[in-house]
Amino acid sequence: MGSGGGGAEEVTVVENREWYLAAYAPEGVPTSDHLKLRTVSFSLSAVAIPDQHVALQLLYISLDPYLRSRMSGHEDGLYAPQFPLNKGIEAFGMGRVIRSKDIKFTEGDIVIYPFSPVAEYSVVPSTFLQKVDPTVGIALPDYLGCFGVPGFAAWVGIEVLGKPKPGSNVFISAAAGGVGMYAGQLAKLKGCRVIGSTGSDDKVKLVKEEFGYDDAFNYHTETDFNAALSKYFPNGIDVYFDNVGGNMLEAVLNHVNNGARIPVCGMISQYSKIWTEREGVRNLLNLVGKEVRVEGFMIGSYLHRFGDFAKEMQGYIKEGKISFKHKIYHGIESFLEGIASMFSSTNTGKVILQI
Amino acid sequence: MGSGGGGAEEVTVVENREWYLAAYAPEGVPTSDHLKLRTVSFSLSAVAIPDQHVALQLLYISLDPYLRSRMSGHEDGLYAPQFPLNKGIEAFGMGRVIRSKDIKFTEGDIVIYPFSPVAEYSVVPSTFLQKVDPTVGIALPDYLGCFGVPGFAAWVGIEVLGKPKPGSNVFISAAAGGVGMYAGQLAKLKGCRVIGSTGSDDKVKLVKEEFGYDDAFNYHTETDFNAALSKYFPNGIDVYFDNVGGNMLEAVLNHVNNGARIPVCGMISQYSKIWTEREGVRNLLNLVGKEVRVEGFMIGSYLHRFGDFAKEMQGYIKEGKISFKHKIYHGIESFLEGIASMFSSTNTGKVILQI
Repeated sequence: MGSGGGGAEEVTVVENREWYLAAYAPEGVPTSDHLKLRTVSFSLSAVAIPDQHVALQLLYISLDPYLRSRMSGHEDGLYAPQFPLNKGIEAFGMGRVIRSKDIKFTEGDIVIYPFSPVAEYSVVPSTFLQKVDPTVGIALPDYLGCFGVPGFAAWVGIEVLGKPKPGSNVFISAAAGGVGMYAGQLAKLKGCRVIGSTGSDDKVKLVKEEFGYDDAFNYHTETDFNAALSKYFPNGIDVYFDNVGGNMLEAVLNHVNNGARIPVCGMISQYSKIWTEREGVRNLLNLVGKEVRVEGFMIGSYLHRFGDFAKEMQGYIKEGKISFKHKIYHGIESFLEGIASMFSSTNTGKVILQI
Repeated sequence: MGSGGGGAEEVTVVENREWYLAAYAPEGVPTSDHLKLRTVSFSLSAVAIPDQHVALQLLYISLDPYLRSRMSGHEDGLYAPQFPLNKGIEAFGMGRVIRSKDIKFTEGDIVIYPFSPVAEYSVVPSTFLQKVDPTVGIALPDYLGCFGVPGFAAWVGIEVLGKPKPGSNVFISAAAGGVGMYAGQLAKLKGCRVIGSTGSDDKVKLVKEEFGYDDAFNYHTETDFNAALSKYFPNGIDVYFDNVGGNMLEAVLNHVNNGARIPVCGMISQYSKIWTEREGVRNLLNLVGKEVRVEGFMIGSYLHRFGDFAKEMQGYIKEGKISFKHKIYHGIESFLEGIASMFSSTNTGKVILQI
C-alpha cells in the first residue's frame, strides 16, 4: 500500500504484458514485425514506487489513428514524437489505482492518463492523472469516446473552427469513425444538412440510422468523388470536416461554396505513405476564388475549451441526443488487430482496447 | 457637353481602339491569336450618352494576373467570370471625364473605374466611378498601385489575415511583383524578418535594396526550394504570403512553424494550366501537425476595410516608408506585351498600361 494508506509493506511481483515497438513501419499498416508483445515482471512493492507516483492496473486504451504516425520512423506531418524502439507504446488510457504514493489518489480510484502504456500494469507520475467519478452514470469506455480524444476533436472542428450555421451544408469524411460520428451529430444538432462518406454499405446505413446523417455514400463503390459530391451537394459545401485528406479533399475543393471552412482533423488515407508518395491536391486555387479557410488542428491546443466541451457534451448525452458506437477489442493481445482495423475500412466507431 | 454642363450639342465621332477576346486560351500565355486590337468609331455626342453615364478617355489600365484567368474559357479556381468572346476586355482603370450626364461629374474629372474597357474611349455608368483628387500629391499611376488592386491585396494578406508579429519570419513569393513588393514592405514595417523569392538576380537585388527585404533568392537558380527555405529560414516560417502556389507552397509546408498562417492571394505559377495538370501539393498533412491556417482571399470581400488601408498607406507614402516600382507599358497596343510579362518572370513591380 502507498503513502495514502499506510500499513504493512507487501511485496508482490506479477507478470506484466506490454506492447513495444520492435521496428519502424515507414509505409503500410504496422504488423507483428513492428509491434510485439512481451512479458516483464512487475513489482507491486510500494518501495518500488517513487513519491508522487501511483501504480495502475490498466483497464482501457484509446486507439486513435495518430498513433500510427508515431510508428513510422520519420516526421510525417503530425509531428507527434516517434515512439523509441524497444520501449513500450503509450496512448490515452484509463486505469485503476492499485498503489499510491500521492495523497490525492487512493487504491480503487479510476483515473484517465494521457500517456498510458499499452500494458497490464504501470507506475506513472500522478501529475497528469485525472480522476473519474463513477457515480455520474457515464460508462467507463465513454470517457475515451464522447469525453475523450475523438469527442473533443469533433467538437473543436465543428464548434470552434467550422462554425456551421443552421442550414449549412456539411460534409464529414470517415463519417462512421471515432471522430466522424460525433462531428456529424454535432453538426446535426446545429441544424445543418449533413452528408458523410464512409467505407461500407453497412456504415452508410449506420450513420444514417444511428447518427442521423441526412445521407451518406460508400467511397469504395462511389469512386468518382466529384460525381458523388455533385449529387449529394447540389448547393455546394459550406463546411468540410476533413478526416482523410488526399483525393477526397481535392474533390471537395471543386464543390466548396464561397467562404467555406475546412477544419482538418487528420488525413487517414495518407498516413501509411511517405509524404512524397501521398496524393497531391492540384486544385488549391479554389481556396482563392472561393475564399476558403483550411485549418489544421491538434486538440492539445484547445484544452482551455475542454470545460465548455464537456459541459455541452454532458448535456447532449443526458438528453439522449448523441449516439455512439464503440468497437471494443478484448484482451491486451488484440492491440495490433485494433490498430490495423482503423486503416482498413473495417472499423466502425471509436476503437477501444479493453485490457 | 452633358447635363452637368449645358450648351450647344457637339457631334464628334472619333476612332476608338479597343482590345477584345477573339478566342479563349485554356493553357499557356495568351497570344495575338486570343487577344486582338480593333478600331471602332466612337460618338462623343451627348445624345449617345445615357443619363447617369459619362464618356471617359482612358488614361491608365491596371494589369493584374487575375485577368489571365478570365481568358481561359473555363472556371479555374479564381471564379472571376470569363470575358465573353468578341467583347472588349475590362480591367481596373483610370480615365478623364470628357462628357457627363451625371451632375456629380464634370469634364476634366479624373476617375477610377473598376470595369474599364482596355480602350481609348468608353461610355460607362457613373455608379462605380470614384473621383481622384489630383491636388493631394499622389501621382496618377500610384492610384493603380499602392492605392489600387495590388496595394490593397498586400494589406489584406498581411494586416487582416497574416497578422505577423515583430520578429515573425515572413516569406513572400513573387516578391518583386505588384503585390509582393507591398506585402514585403508592410511586413518589414511591422518589424518582421522578411525573405522573398523572385525570378531573376536583378529582382533579388531590387527587393533587398529598394524594398528592404532581409534577403531573397532567385527561384530559377535555387531550384531546390526545400534547400533554399532551410537556408533562409533556419527558424521556420510564421507567415507565408502566397502569390504563386504549386511546388513553392509544397516546399513552404515543410518549413512552417506551429500556428503559421498562409494568406493565399494568387497562384500565378498555376494559372496557365488546367487544374488537373497543376502541381499537386502532397504534404498538406503538415497543416494538421503544425496547426496551420491557409486562407484564400479576394479583395472585393474586404472593401469595408478599404478606408483603414488607404489611411495607413497614405501615412507610409507621406513618410517615405514605402517604395514601389511601376512597369508602365506605353500605348494601347502594348496591352498584350504587358499581360505576357506577368507570366514570364520578366516583369518587375506593378504593371500598368498607359493609354
